[in-house]
Amino acid sequence: MTIEQLMSFLEEDLGFGDITSDLLIPRGLKAKGVIVAKERGIVAGVEEAEMLFKHFGVNVKINRRDGNVVNPGDVIIEVEGEARSILMVERTVLNIMMRMSGIATETKALVEKIRKAGLNVKIAATRKTAPGLRALDKKAVIIGGGEPHRLRLDDAILIKDNHIALVGSVKEALQRARENVSFVKKIEVEAKTLSEALEASESGADIVMLDDMKPEQIREVVQYLKNKGLYGKVLLEASGGINPSNVIEYASTGVHVISLGYLTHSAKALDMSLEITT
Amino acid sequence: MTIEQLMSFLEEDLGFGDITSDLLIPRGLKAKGVIVAKERGIVAGVEEAEMLFKHFGVNVKINRRDGNVVNPGDVIIEVEGEARSILMVERTVLNIMMRMSGIATETKALVEKIRKAGLNVKIAATRKTAPGLRALDKKAVIIGGGEPHRLRLDDAILIKDNHIALVGSVKEALQRARENVSFVKKIEVEAKTLSEALEASESGADIVMLDDMKPEQIREVVQYLKNKGLYGKVLLEASGGINPSNVIEYASTGVHVISLGYLTHSAKALDMSLEITT
Amino acid sequence: MTIEQLMSFLEEDLGFGDITSDLLIPRGLKAKGVIVAKERGIVAGVEEAEMLFKHFGVNVKINRRDGNVVNPGDVIIEVEGEARSILMVERTVLNIMMRMSGIATETKALVEKIRKAGLNVKIAATRKTAPGLRALDKKAVIIGGGEPHRLRLDDAILIKDNHIALVGSVKEALQRARENVSFVKKIEVEAKTLSEALEASESGADIVMLDDMKPEQIREVVQYLKNKGLYGKVLLEASGGINPSNVIEYASTGVHVISLGYLTHSAKALDMSLEITT
Amino acid sequence: MTIEQLMSFLEEDLGFGDITSDLLIPRGLKAKGVIVAKERGIVAGVEEAEMLFKHFGVNVKINRRDGNVVNPGDVIIEVEGEARSILMVERTVLNIMMRMSGIATETKALVEKIRKAGLNVKIAATRKTAPGLRALDKKAVIIGGGEPHRLRLDDAILIKDNHIALVGSVKEALQRARENVSFVKKIEVEAKTLSEALEASESGADIVMLDDMKPEQIREVVQYLKNKGLYGKVLLEASGGINPSNVIEYASTGVHVISLGYLTHSAKALDMSLEITT
Amino acid sequence: MTIEQLMSFLEEDLGFGDITSDLLIPRGLKAKGVIVAKERGIVAGVEEAEMLFKHFGVNVKINRRDGNVVNPGDVIIEVEGEARSILMVERTVLNIMMRMSGIATETKALVEKIRKAGLNVKIAATRKTAPGLRALDKKAVIIGGGEPHRLRLDDAILIKDNHIALVGSVKEALQRARENVSFVKKIEVEAKTLSEALEASESGADIVMLDDMKPEQIREVVQYLKNKGLYGKVLLEASGGINPSNVIEYASTGVHVISLGYLTHSAKALDMSLEITT
Amino acid sequence: MTIEQLMSFLEEDLGFGDITSDLLIPRGLKAKGVIVAKERGIVAGVEEAEMLFKHFGVNVKINRRDGNVVNPGDVIIEVEGEARSILMVERTVLNIMMRMSGIATETKALVEKIRKAGLNVKIAATRKTAPGLRALDKKAVIIGGGEPHRLRLDDAILIKDNHIALVGSVKEALQRARENVSFVKKIEVEAKTLSEALEASESGADIVMLDDMKPEQIREVVQYLKNKGLYGKVLLEASGGINPSNVIEYASTGVHVISLGYLTHSAKALDMSLEITT
Repeated sequence: MTIEQLMSFLEEDLGFGDITSDLLIPRGLKAKGVIVAKERGIVAGVEEAEMLFKHFGVNVKINRRDGNVVNPGDVIIEVEGEARSILMVERTVLNIMMRMSGIATETKALVEKIRKAGLNVKIAATRKTAPGLRALDKKAVIIGGGEPHRLRLDDAILIKDNHIALVGSVKEALQRARENVSFVKKIEVEAKTLSEALEASESGADIVMLDDMKPEQIREVVQYLKNKGLYGKVLLEASGGINPSNVIEYASTGVHVISLGYLTHSAKALDMSLEITT
Repeated sequence: MTIEQLMSFLEEDLGFGDITSDLLIPRGLKAKGVIVAKERGIVAGVEEAEMLFKHFGVNVKINRRDGNVVNPGDVIIEVEGEARSILMVERTVLNIMMRMSGIATETKALVEKIRKAGLNVKIAATRKTAPGLRALDKKAVIIGGGEPHRLRLDDAILIKDNHIALVGSVKEALQRARENVSFVKKIEVEAKTLSEALEASESGADIVMLDDMKPEQIREVVQYLKNKGLYGKVLLEASGGINPSNVIEYASTGVHVISLGYLTHSAKALDMSLEITT
Repeated sequence: MTIEQLMSFLEEDLGFGDITSDLLIPRGLKAKGVIVAKERGIVAGVEEAEMLFKHFGVNVKINRRDGNVVNPGDVIIEVEGEARSILMVERTVLNIMMRMSGIATETKALVEKIRKAGLNVKIAATRKTAPGLRALDKKAVIIGGGEPHRLRLDDAILIKDNHIALVGSVKEALQRARENVSFVKKIEVEAKTLSEALEASESGADIVMLDDMKPEQIREVVQYLKNKGLYGKVLLEASGGINPSNVIEYASTGVHVISLGYLTHSAKALDMSLEITT
Repeated sequence: MTIEQLMSFLEEDLGFGDITSDLLIPRGLKAKGVIVAKERGIVAGVEEAEMLFKHFGVNVKINRRDGNVVNPGDVIIEVEGEARSILMVERTVLNIMMRMSGIATETKALVEKIRKAGLNVKIAATRKTAPGLRALDKKAVIIGGGEPHRLRLDDAILIKDNHIALVGSVKEALQRARENVSFVKKIEVEAKTLSEALEASESGADIVMLDDMKPEQIREVVQYLKNKGLYGKVLLEASGGINPSNVIEYASTGVHVISLGYLTHSAKALDMSLEITT
Repeated sequence: MTIEQLMSFLEEDLGFGDITSDLLIPRGLKAKGVIVAKERGIVAGVEEAEMLFKHFGVNVKINRRDGNVVNPGDVIIEVEGEARSILMVERTVLNIMMRMSGIATETKALVEKIRKAGLNVKIAATRKTAPGLRALDKKAVIIGGGEPHRLRLDDAILIKDNHIALVGSVKEALQRARENVSFVKKIEVEAKTLSEALEASESGADIVMLDDMKPEQIREVVQYLKNKGLYGKVLLEASGGINPSNVIEYASTGVHVISLGYLTHSAKALDMSLEITT
Repeated sequence: MTIEQLMSFLEEDLGFGDITSDLLIPRGLKAKGVIVAKERGIVAGVEEAEMLFKHFGVNVKINRRDGNVVNPGDVIIEVEGEARSILMVERTVLNIMMRMSGIATETKALVEKIRKAGLNVKIAATRKTAPGLRALDKKAVIIGGGEPHRLRLDDAILIKDNHIALVGSVKEALQRARENVSFVKKIEVEAKTLSEALEASESGADIVMLDDMKPEQIREVVQYLKNKGLYGKVLLEASGGINPSNVIEYASTGVHVISLGYLTHSAKALDMSLEITT
C-alpha cells in the first residue's frame, strides 16, 4: 500500500478540511497522543498508521507491531506532533487499524484453534474482500497467520461451478485449461460432488476445492483418493459454510486448506481509540 | 458512485484479466445468470451492480430494488450477455452487494425494532466506515432507513473529547466554534458527563452527543434539560456501547438519535451468489 | 490542497519541461528571487506557494502570510535554490497567488466597508467558483474575512427556484426536505417574494435566501418577520445583483448574510511578479 | 477537454450527491429547461455543456454555438431529461460557460476594437490562466477571435527577463538557445529596452516581446528596425500594462501582436442562468 | 486494457489537440481510411485499435484479427467517420499496433521454428517489457503463440541470483520459500550451475531456470535429472543469451521452456500505415 | 518525468508486492549493489533510476551520467540500502535504463556517423514512440545528441499526406494553416514529389519534409530550391526508409534534418544488470 493510496483514504474523510480542528486548535500547537486497544486481539495496520502520521510530520513510537497480541488498555502507538495533524488523521488511521486488526484477530483465532487441535491445516481467505481493500484485507489475513489465496483473477486458474456449467464437464474444463495455461500458474478446480472431485484429481488439477460438502463427504473423497494413491499429489481445500464452531470437524477430515469468506466479507473491527494525552 | 469508481474495484480484482474464463469460455458465448439471495435481508447495491453489468453490455433485469426485502432463493437480478463478461464482473458485483445489503439489513433491523417499540428515534451511522467505501457504506445505511450523519470532516462541526482536552473546556471550545463557523453548518458537541452536556446545551450547541453514558445518566440529562426548558431546542444523540440488545433501553431515554459505529465498521455481509442458468 | 493537486497545476503548465530554462540555465546554478506585490491588497496563496517551492528543494522565507496586507513593492516571499526549479515553478505559483489574493482582497474590501459602516453582516461566497478551484477560491474568501457558504451540493439543503418550480410550493418543498434531511444539515430556502419568504420562515427553514430582491423589499420581509416574532429565529441571506456600490444599502436592511457570486466568478487578480535577485 | 476532465469538475461540486434534489425530486420525473443569457456577449463553453448533459442522458438542443453573439434573454441551450440530472449538472455547466463566455466576450471586444480602427494586430492571451483551466481559458480566447500564444512551457522558447538576468545578456541567451533548440520551435525574447530589442532582432529571434514599454518607446523600436531592414523579419509583440483604454494606441505602433494577461487572470464572467420551464 | 488506459496514450500524443487537423479539416467532414500492412507478419493490437476508434464514433470493419498473418498491402482495418477523429487517433493506434504486431511476429517466428524442428518447447517472455506496457507486451506474446511467464512480481516465486547471494544457498532460499509460500503459487529457482540446478530440483522447486548456461551444460543437467528420476517432475526453463540463431540448439536440450527478454525489450515494430481513401 | 509517473511503472511490476523477496529477505537487511553495463553504448535513464531508488531511501552513487559512454563491465550506479527495496525496484529501473540507453546509443551512432562524414545534418526522432513513453523516448534521443521533433500533436503544424488528400492541394492546405495558425508555431509540410516540395517552399512553409523520396530525388529538390533562391529559407527534412546503411547518402543531399521512426519504435535495449555485491 503506497502513501498515495493511504492519502486517498484520508482525502475521502477530509473533503476540504477538518473544519472543527481548524476552528478550535491554533496552528502550531503541539500535542501527544496514544492509540490504545480496547479489546484483546492481534494488531494490524501499524505500518499503514506509521506511514500516514509520518507523512504529516508526526513522530511515531511503535509499541506493538503488526501481529502482536494486544490487551485492553495497551498502548499500540505513541504520537507527538502538530495537534491539528494528529486529529486530522485520527479517524482514517483508526478505521484502517480496526478493520485490519479485526481480520487478523479472527484469522489468528482459527489458526490457533487448529494448531491446538494438533492439526496441520491452513486457514485461507477468499476474494470476498471489501471493494478497494483487497491488499489490506489480504495483508491482515497474513498477519493473522493465514494464507491469502488468489490475490486477483489473474493469479491462478480456478475453475468454478459456473465455468463447469458452461463448458460441460470438469474433465473438459481441465483439459482446456491445461492446454493453454501458463507454466507458472497452478490450476484449481471446484468440486461439488465426490465424482467431480475424483475427476478433477485424476485429470491433473493441482488443487481441488471441495465446495459446500459436509465433513463426511469430504472424508469420503479423502479415502477414495488414498485408495487411488492420489492423496498428497493434489492439494485439498474445503470451502463453504465453515465457521469457528465446525472448523475443527472440517480440519480433521484430511484436507490441507480451509478457506472462509467471512474472514474478510464480515470482518468484525477490533476496538481502539486515539487519546490526546497532553 | 461513478462508473469510474466502480471500475477501479473491478480492476483491483481483475489485474491483467480473468485468465480462467479466457482459457475456458469462447469469446462470443452468450449466457444467462441470476443473482440469488441466500439469506433474508434488505437488498442494497443493486444500482451499482446494474452500472457495472451495463458497462460491459450485459442486459440486466431488476427484480428487487435497493431497499426491498429478500428471502433465501429470491432472484434479485437477472443478467444476459457475453458469458466472459458476466463471469469477470461476478465477484466485484457480489462483494459490493453483499456488503451494502449487510449494512442495510442490520440498519433496518434496528430501525424496525425502534418503530415497533413505538419510539421516534433515528438510527445513525458514524465515520467508522471501511476506508474508500464511505459513499457506499453511508448509502447502504440510508437504504436501510438510517441516517448518514457526517459524510466527512468538513460536513459539520463536531467537538470531540480530544478537542476539549486541547482547548480546556466545552464552553471555550463552543465559543471559538460559534465565532467563526460558517452559517450553513451545525455544531455538535460530545459530552461525557452531565455537566458537559449541560454546558454544551446552554452554550448554543445544535446537537449534543451523549457519549459512553449509561441509559440512566442519559435520562438524568434529559430530565435536567427539561427542567431548564432546553429539551427540544438541542438535539440529543446517544453514542458508545449501544447494540441491538440495549438499543431500546437507550431509545426510550428521550434522545433523538442513536449512532452506532458497528453498522459499518463490523458489517456482516448478506450472503448471495450468482448462478449461470444456461 | 494536497501537494499532488498543486503538482497537477504545475504539470499542466510544464508539459515535457521548461525547455527555455533547460536550454539556458546550467543544472546546478543557484539563484535567489523574490515575489513582489505590484498592487495593494490582501495576500493569499502563500501556503500553496511554499508547498510547491519546497517540493523542489527551494528554500522559502515568508515575509507576508496569508491574510496580511501588502503594498506595491512589498516582498511577500524570498526563495533560494536551484535556478531551474525557481523558474519552472514561477508561473504556476504566481497564477495561484494572484487569483487567491485577488479574491481575498475584494472580499476584505467588502468586509471592511461593512465593518466601517458599523454593521454586523457577513460577506459570503457562492458555488460560482472556477471549475476545479473550489477549494482555493473558498479558502481565499475565508482569508479575506468572508464566509465560504456551501462547499458542495452535499453540504446543506438549499431549495432553489428550480426545485420549487418542480415541487409546486415552498411549503411542500420544505416539508419533503424536513422529513428526510439528515439531522446534521441545515435547510436553506430561496425566496423571490415576500410571501415565499414568509412561507419559508414559518415552515421551519434555518436560513432564507432573499434572492434578487430590492433593499426595500428586504426591509419589508424583515419588518414582517419582526411582527411575527420570527426575526432572529431564521437567518436571512441577501443575494443577487449586490455589488460594492450597493452593498451597504443591502447590509443595512436587517439581513445577516450577503452572498456575492462575483467574488469568485469574476475575480480580478492581484498583480505580483517573481524577480530573480542574483 | 475530455468528458473525464469535465466529470472531475462536476465531482468537485457534487461530493456524495445533490442531496437537495434527491430529497425533493422523485426519480424519474422529467423536466425541460433553458440556459439563458443575462448579458450581451460572445458565448463559449457550449461544447462542454453539451458533453456534460449528454453524459447523463439529457437531450440537448443548441440554439447558440461557441462564438455566437447572445443578448439578454436569448436561449442558448434547451435541455430535456431527468430533472435530477439537469439540476445536478446545472452549476458546473454554468460555471464553465460563464467563465469561458466572459473570456471570449472580452477578447472579442478588443479584436473588434482593433478591426474597427483599421489595424491588423493580433490579440493574444498569456500563460496567466486559472490553474487547471489552461485548455478552457485558451479555447475561450480562440473562440473570441484571439490567439492562444504558448500553451505550456514546452511550446516555444521564450527568453524572459529572469533568464537574461541569470545568463548575462540577450545575445548570449539567444546564442545558447539557437544552438540547441529543436528546429520545430520558435524563439521569442522579452526585451525591456530599445537596445535589448535590437540585440534580440539582430541575433535571430523569431519574435521579440516588447515588455512594459510605452507606445512611444515601441514606435522607436519599430522605426529603428525599419531603418535596419529588420522590420517584418522579426515578429513584434507588445505586452505589459495594456488594457482596453490604451490598446489602440499600442496597436497603432507597428507591433504585430498584443498580449494581455487580464483576459484570463481577471476574466469577468458573462451572466447566465438555467431555468426549469416545466 | 481498458478504454481509460488507451485514452491516456492518446492524451499523451494530443496535448491540447490536433492543431493541424483542426486548422485544415472542417468539423463534420466525413472520411474513409484503411490501415495497411507494409511488412509480412502477425497482426496484434486490433482489439485496442477498435476500442479507440469506436470511442470517437468511428465505424470499424476488421479484416484481419489479432493473430492473423498479414502481407504487405493487406488491409487490416477499414474505418469510416469524422475525418478529424480518424486523423487524431491515427498515430496512437499505429504506435500500439506496430509494437504489438512486432512482438507477436517475432514470437511467432520462434514458435514456428521450434514446431518445424519437431520440438515441443514453449517460448516465453520475461518481465523485461517497456515500462507501462506490461499488459500489451504480454498480450502480444500470447497472440504470437508464446507464453507470458510472470505478469508481475506477485505472480509466482522466482528465486534469483541476487536472492541466493543474500540468503546464502539455493537450498536455504527454497526452504524459506516453501515454508511460507501461498499454496496457489509455484516456486521457480534460477540456477547458474549444475550443482545449483540439482539442489533446486531436489529441494522441491516447481520450475528451475537454467540461466546463462550453454546448451551442453543444459544437456548435462537434463541427463543428471534423468538419472535421478527427477526429469519431468520439475519444469526446466532455459534463459540468457538465447536468440533466433541458437534457439533450436537450446530447444533440443530437453528443456520445456525457453524465455527471451529481447522479445519485448528490443521489439522491432511491424510497419503499417493509415491511408485516407476518400 | 515526475516520481509519480515512475512509481506507476513500479506499481505495474509490483502488484501487491515482491512476494519472493518478502519471503526470503528479512526486513532490515542492508545490501550493496551495482548496475553494470554489459554492452558498449551511451547510458541514459540515470536520473530516473536515481529518483526511484531515493524514493525508497536507497543511497545512490552515480558513476556514469546520462550521455556518458559505457563499456561492458562498467559500473554505472552504486546503490546501498534496504535489500528488499533494492530488489523490488531492480527490474523497473533496468527496464527504464535499458530502453533509454538503447535509444540514446543508436541515436549517438547516427549522429557520430554524420559528424565523422563532415556533414552538418540533425538526426531527429518522430512521434513513433512507445505508447506512454513519449517523454522518456524523446529525452533519450536528446541524450544521444538527437533532436526530439514534435513532442505532441499540439506542438507545431505538420501537414501530412492525409491532410492534403482531404484538403485537395498543398497550396490550399498551407493557406488555411497560415491564416489561423498561432504566431508561436512553425508550419511543416510533408511532400512526396518535387512539385509538392516546391509548392510548399513557395507557399511559406517553415519546414518541408521530403517523405519517402530517394536521395537523387532529394538532390533534385535541393537544386531546384537553390535555383529559385529558396534554399536556406525553408528547412528541409528527409524522412522514410532511412537507416544506418543509407543515412550518409541522405545526409549528403543537402537536407538539414533526417528523421527516423525506428530510433524509438524499434529501439534495441542496451544490456545491463543489477548485481548484489554484499
